[in-house]
Amino acid sequence: MAHYPDAIKACIAYFNRLPGIGPKSAERIVFYLLKQNPGFIAEFTGTIGSLKKHITVCDSCFNIGATNPCEICADKKRDQRTLCVVADPQDISILEKTGEYRGLYHVLGGVLNPVEGITPDHIRIQELFARIKKHTPRITEVIIATNPDLEGESTALYLGRKLKAAGVRATRLAKGLPMGATIEYADEITITSALKGRQDI
Amino acid sequence: MAHYPDAIKACIAYFNRLPGIGPKSAERIVFYLLKQNPGFIAEFTGTIGSLKKHITVCDSCFNIGATNPCEICADKKRDQRTLCVVADPQDISILEKTGEYRGLYHVLGGVLNPVEGITPDHIRIQELFARIKKHTPRITEVIIATNPDLEGESTALYLGRKLKAAGVRATRLAKGLPMGATIEYADEITITSALKGRQDI
Repeated sequence: MAHYPDAIKACIAYFNRLPGIGPKSAERIVFYLLKQNPGFIAEFTGTIGSLKKHITVCDSCFNIGATNPCEICADKKRDQRTLCVVADPQDISILEKTGEYRGLYHVLGGVLNPVEGITPDHIRIQELFARIKKHTPRITEVIIATNPDLEGESTALYLGRKLKAAGVRATRLAKGLPMGATIEYADEITITSALKGRQDI
Repeated sequence: MAHYPDAIKACIAYFNRLPGIGPKSAERIVFYLLKQNPGFIAEFTGTIGSLKKHITVCDSCFNIGATNPCEICADKKRDQRTLCVVADPQDISILEKTGEYRGLYHVLGGVLNPVEGITPDHIRIQELFARIKKHTPRITEVIIATNPDLEGESTALYLGRKLKAAGVRATRLAKGLPMGATIEYADEITITSALKGRQDI
């Protein structure tokens, strides 16, 4: 870094702040940009700059979209009795790709993480219960689709208890061996989950 | 991708074009940006947008810098008889960090790559020989510091021959085991290079 001009250093520092981009990748990107014509850079910065202008957050599910309510909430053909709780908007995209799920969503905007100070008040749990309370038709099942890691599991556990107390069925995505996995290399927790969740063939 | 609004898709596509950023990383970055306040995005795009304004290319060595001639070419205390040939400006930064090299540089702007149609006319080889011809004091050694891969090696070979024909000593960075390497896992070519280049202790 020491031998670069300030403009390059500043640009590298910004890219380095983006998720998944280390100092080396940031450097490569900046030198790539330096090789591009000014038109590319103008379009690139323009696209990023106008990103938020065209994007709105859905008032009912907190999904990110071009409209409010979002396409999914506005679609009356979807199952209005099932809610799938996800941590982030991008999780919805993954679930939608399967075409398997036809219900509605609720975006928490994160998961519980006491170490980083993320308590139930920091994510949209209050909004979830307010929505369930006033929703017609009545929500009969909430599928909790948080990641199968420590934070995702404890968030699911916390929500599951509160949902049961509110008289709503709470379910969790199945855990087991992923497609293409090798049993030899699978960890014990995954094997345990796969055994517990075994199904008839 | 299918379920994202156009503004998000466009932004993901742009990030995906940057080196080292796949579609998944691009997605993560865009959702990270969506979470930031507008000030961050304005500063980020501003920094990228003004990148080229503050950067100029050195007329003699083709290094990228804030001044022309660049800091290195303008530094009369450096050894004016040695030239180090690199593929890209970022390679200079790596060599400078060692503090070992005190000569001048020449940036080729790439390496020969017949598969991608990069012939000697596409990189600054003509400029290198024009510079050597008119340079005072006379250049006595050219260190070729291209990568030790197929393209880097053939570029070095090509330049080496031309330099010898022009009566200039051409050298190449040593090849051998990198610091911290394990001989057990080193490839044969590296071991061969390490053997050939063995030194007295």
